[in-house]
Amino acid sequence: MAIITLATDYGNSDGYNAAVIGVIKSLSPGAEVIEITNGFSSIAKTSLVLWRYYSQFPKGTIHLVVIDPTVGTSRRALVGTDGNYCFVGPDNGIFTRIMEACPDSLWYEIDPTRLPANTVSNTFHGRDIFAPAAAFFANGILPESFSKKINDAVKVDIPKPIITAKRISGEIIDIDSFGNLIINISGESLGDKPKVILKGKKLRLGKFYADARPGNPIAYIGSLGLLEIALNGKRADKYFQVKVGTPVKVTI
Amino acid sequence: MAIITLATDYGNSDGYNAAVIGVIKSLSPGAEVIEITNGFSSIAKTSLVLWRYYSQFPKGTIHLVVIDPTVGTSRRALVGTDGNYCFVGPDNGIFTRIMEACPDSLWYEIDPTRLPANTVSNTFHGRDIFAPAAAFFANGILPESFSKKINDAVKVDIPKPIITAKRISGEIIDIDSFGNLIINISGESLGDKPKVILKGKKLRLGKFYADARPGNPIAYIGSLGLLEIALNGKRADKYFQVKVGTPVKVTI
Amino acid sequence: MAIITLATDYGNSDGYNAAVIGVIKSLSPGAEVIEITNGFSSIAKTSLVLWRYYSQFPKGTIHLVVIDPTVGTSRRALVGTDGNYCFVGPDNGIFTRIMEACPDSLWYEIDPTRLPANTVSNTFHGRDIFAPAAAFFANGILPESFSKKINDAVKVDIPKPIITAKRISGEIIDIDSFGNLIINISGESLGDKPKVILKGKKLRLGKFYADARPGNPIAYIGSLGLLEIALNGKRADKYFQVKVGTPVKVTI
Repeated sequence: MAIITLATDYGNSDGYNAAVIGVIKSLSPGAEVIEITNGFSSIAKTSLVLWRYYSQFPKGTIHLVVIDPTVGTSRRALVGTDGNYCFVGPDNGIFTRIMEACPDSLWYEIDPTRLPANTVSNTFHGRDIFAPAAAFFANGILPESFSKKINDAVKVDIPKPIITAKRISGEIIDIDSFGNLIINISGESLGDKPKVILKGKKLRLGKFYADARPGNPIAYIGSLGLLEIALNGKRADKYFQVKVGTPVKVTI
Repeated sequence: MAIITLATDYGNSDGYNAAVIGVIKSLSPGAEVIEITNGFSSIAKTSLVLWRYYSQFPKGTIHLVVIDPTVGTSRRALVGTDGNYCFVGPDNGIFTRIMEACPDSLWYEIDPTRLPANTVSNTFHGRDIFAPAAAFFANGILPESFSKKINDAVKVDIPKPIITAKRISGEIIDIDSFGNLIINISGESLGDKPKVILKGKKLRLGKFYADARPGNPIAYIGSLGLLEIALNGKRADKYFQVKVGTPVKVTI
Repeated sequence: MAIITLATDYGNSDGYNAAVIGVIKSLSPGAEVIEITNGFSSIAKTSLVLWRYYSQFPKGTIHLVVIDPTVGTSRRALVGTDGNYCFVGPDNGIFTRIMEACPDSLWYEIDPTRLPANTVSNTFHGRDIFAPAAAFFANGILPESFSKKINDAVKVDIPKPIITAKRISGEIIDIDSFGNLIINISGESLGDKPKVILKGKKLRLGKFYADARPGNPIAYIGSLGLLEIALNGKRADKYFQVKVGTPVKVTI
């Protein structure tokens, strides 16, 4: 029984998510649809969050992601695979981090005329294109039979840290719902006794939130393997008055 | 394995949805419960949204909908079927559009004394009446055995457009979470070159958002087959300062 | 097929819930994961809400609850069972009402070194400790094999009513998303003709909301078997200007 995860920006009041799930279950009754969220927002964040969860699922899982601000333009509809997982969604950069993590992954442009729907609406591709494509994967249909290989899938710009002998200059790439700051600096690059500097404040590297006194900040290697900064018991984003893009420096 | 969709206004903090799902799984362990939302609000909107998704699911799916502001009054508890799908919920108008779309659909008043629960609370019919009724359907029990046929199920008023030879006068019947405006004018009634008029602004009929320049409005036939108005990349409801009920005219 | 319910405070934008579900499905592919919410907040409320739904599920269901403000401190990771249901989550009091309702329930401290994950992060125990433990339960592995029995699991303070011959003094212990007030006074203790007093206002005991005129308050025995106060059609918390902890008196 194939698993299809579903992540969208459809919200919880319009039933768009339901229409997508209904189409999948109609075309692939045995598929197990697991709705991750209907509350995604930006393309960049979606790319990061998908990277967080995709490989936790069993191999063979199909990840359907519909954050699609340019639905109905000429943007292409994608399917892809890294050999272990399948991906379905718009070609707008949401799969960037998958492509970076898996340079050998293969990507295909869906040909809507080869999908089972009789009519493809111009504004609801989640229901009319992406759901059928995910069901095809679940039914073991190969992407070659309803899409054609491409080599120029859209990527969003992912900020890279600048690494020198004594210093790494990175930035905040995400703030999670707890206010924790996620930074584009790998835990492996930090050496023995790094000093983390955010807005002039020097932080030592701890293991978890409680390594700081309550209300105080701490840096640590987070669950993605990246440097993070949090407060013990409060929101770090409010404390530091920072946002995505704020620079973070590490002296090694 | 029967599918039961669940849509409520229970919110995400009180576990009322969990209690409903638990009762269903206890009474019908093989049923697959798919929670659509716990964030519904008004009866009129629920009726519209249910109409959007119900027929996307495989035939035999049971749609359980609990938006029930008058729980514990004398309002009746309903089950119904259109021959393909089953419906369970309060008799307050949430099934109006199903009834309009399927005039032959059959509706029944649940007799709580014929449900398995020993006690039926006065304030949590989702758990005590509707969940058991949905599980009954999933177990193949016919509505006649726990409910009696009625012919006067409650309907809410659905605004109809006024159609003359040269003009259709309709109104906005829903605004979705993206700010798109959904209008009670069928796409089939629009003729060759309609002009859509909202608050004095004439809009041409396009195919999708991107037929307008960024930030500009466009009219199109939406995924429900109804006229819609959106902005390319922004919220149409904010741009036009409109709400549900605002008139829309089309000259044919 | 074991059912695992999942309730967290992870929100709907970061994919932490997805990572947890993915780990469960990887370790126990046959488990049916039912996400109750990712929107829980306080420990006290979680304890109450879990009590509302846990026993509605079929016996054997595993309830995974991750509201974990002190993740990464020395707080223990728990599993427990009352003989019918299994529980997994942090040792911070979220299971208090289960412990009170089932004094014979057994509780164990998880030994992370006996879990299958190669690495246990310090900040994401939902993924690295609790998800594997829930999957173990689903696979029929006994708690003794990955955890050790304890007798001092953390409990939060649960306010008890003071009962005298003529009067019960309780308080509001929860306000649900509809604004209904839930009070720590059992329906069974109320006698024949109780008078309920909140902020100087005397309320009679009805059966449901509609026993009051629209906009008026009513007391009734709610679906938990506890005294509740609601308004017919409006929010009681706003009407009375009350919060959790506000005293409620009943004269018998």
